[in-house]
Amino acid sequence: MPAFKLTPRLVTVGGAQLGPIQRAEKREAVVERLIALLREGHRKGCRIVVFPELALTTFFPRWFMPDWKEVETFFEREMPNKAVQPLFDEAKRLKIGFYLGYAELTADGHHFNTAILVDDTGKIVGKYRKVHLPGHSENEPERPFQHLEKRYFEPGDLGFPVWRSMGGIMGMCICNDRRWPETYRVMGLQGVELLMLGYNTPAINAWAMVHSAPEPEHLRQFHNHVVMQAGAYQNSTWVVAVAKAGIEEDCSLIGGSCIIAPTGEMVALARGVDDELIVADCDLALCKYGKDTIFNFDKHRRIEHYGLISSQTGVIEPPM
Amino acid sequence: MPAFKLTPRLVTVGGAQLGPIQRAEKREAVVERLIALLREGHRKGCRIVVFPELALTTFFPRWFMPDWKEVETFFEREMPNKAVQPLFDEAKRLKIGFYLGYAELTADGHHFNTAILVDDTGKIVGKYRKVHLPGHSENEPERPFQHLEKRYFEPGDLGFPVWRSMGGIMGMCICNDRRWPETYRVMGLQGVELLMLGYNTPAINAWAMVHSAPEPEHLRQFHNHVVMQAGAYQNSTWVVAVAKAGIEEDCSLIGGSCIIAPTGEMVALARGVDDELIVADCDLALCKYGKDTIFNFDKHRRIEHYGLISSQTGVIEPPM
Repeated sequence: MPAFKLTPRLVTVGGAQLGPIQRAEKREAVVERLIALLREGHRKGCRIVVFPELALTTFFPRWFMPDWKEVETFFEREMPNKAVQPLFDEAKRLKIGFYLGYAELTADGHHFNTAILVDDTGKIVGKYRKVHLPGHSENEPERPFQHLEKRYFEPGDLGFPVWRSMGGIMGMCICNDRRWPETYRVMGLQGVELLMLGYNTPAINAWAMVHSAPEPEHLRQFHNHVVMQAGAYQNSTWVVAVAKAGIEEDCSLIGGSCIIAPTGEMVALARGVDDELIVADCDLALCKYGKDTIFNFDKHRRIEHYGLISSQTGVIEPPM
Repeated sequence: MPAFKLTPRLVTVGGAQLGPIQRAEKREAVVERLIALLREGHRKGCRIVVFPELALTTFFPRWFMPDWKEVETFFEREMPNKAVQPLFDEAKRLKIGFYLGYAELTADGHHFNTAILVDDTGKIVGKYRKVHLPGHSENEPERPFQHLEKRYFEPGDLGFPVWRSMGGIMGMCICNDRRWPETYRVMGLQGVELLMLGYNTPAINAWAMVHSAPEPEHLRQFHNHVVMQAGAYQNSTWVVAVAKAGIEEDCSLIGGSCIIAPTGEMVALARGVDDELIVADCDLALCKYGKDTIFNFDKHRRIEHYGLISSQTGVIEPPM
């Protein structure tokens, strides 16, 4: 990493990868695992710990459930609630902030794939709702497993805000959002310095299994990392990406949780696919180098040529 | 690469990396080198050959020249002109299309860093003018060398168009454009299948040498590749990237010319930093897999949250 003569702004961050959560596992048991990782983070000096997407339950969009009552057993009506309160209490006691992904059911009946940022005083300072929902909305029984995020969730309605908290400018996104350069850029335009995200990524592309040919598994991890390394570099931000991993109900989830520097270099990487904490001393001052030079947006961006990005959703090919 | 049951649309593409062009080297001698690479491309079955940025001269923005008459000796007033005509003639004879970068001086006195696409019948079918000009506009004598693109060129005024030609949807950009995800995305929204670009990238970050600390050289190549691999994957397009390389007038230019598949995988890579042709059979049908699935823009993009990208040039941080 290039040196840049600035006062360091060190934030030690932990990425709390989770091994599988089986369908029968109770929230209380999961919260115990989260607390164990939080305590490990405390021993290792973390000020922030990042948990995965939908960290309180199994990844339920893999099943078609015709009964919404059943679907909603995977949602949280309040945050914190009784099952999760011990995590909030322990984090506050340890003075550790955290990112937590969960399925949110609002008082007026909306369903979102949500993440919150809790600061090191125990206050919920930010909420993000997943914008880029992958998958499909109807049951496709020919698939080995479903990916029904487009059925069970509405697209996030909060945009990509950032928050000043715990010494830096914090951003959040969730899973598939990381594949979209727009995600990083909208936060980059707000000066993001530490972008946190959780993910649940199957090792197998179920669509391809049926409709095409098996997608080589090594590409799944390559794609996971390459988009985040580019996004970090192109916006000169830290990225902390945390997986739910391992064999969850016959579905293999990739691990590969990592912490990426503003240069795009990976400085920490999970070694396995089980509960595991990765840690890095994220110097937020390092973001300034890229933001002031090659990615000085004010000097170099040419928005007069970017109009299509925000005015046109799909592809319009040139005429034949 | 994943299989996808479609009729292949093979376009064999050559990337004609150039070793250095010293300042005293005449255009006629350079054109001879281009023709030699074109003939090699013909022997290897190429339908298109991609040459670097500013492929007819040395990379002159490394010098501050107070006299615009001197600067303009590096520009082309017509394309083709007498010096370049033999390249056009030979390409037409061999039925090979090509991408060529050069400094363009328009009849009404505008200066652009330009690339053209010539099809396999010898017709100029597309012109692109570099949008993202890096570097600076005033002489900075403390640097070991200058990067005065912002002085000698105006930002491109043609946007990021694509062209149907030679069996596919073709796009162009130049050098620093490749670091900006907006470049790929605007062309991706028009269905680009083969994105061609030339570059001249110093192995040393001259700004960092003076104002910060030397930037590790390995990062230059990593950044070169990571942005293109992400851009290819995120838009499911082939990317053909061609360097001017080697020690040019005491300035070391990175090579690393490469051809990247729509999966983001690098399928060809230059081995050295001299004149060298890399070749790949680019099956444009492979673009369809990503464009129809994970990057089906119409299904997944949420432009209501992308407004900042085209409405705000620089960073606006949240209030303290």
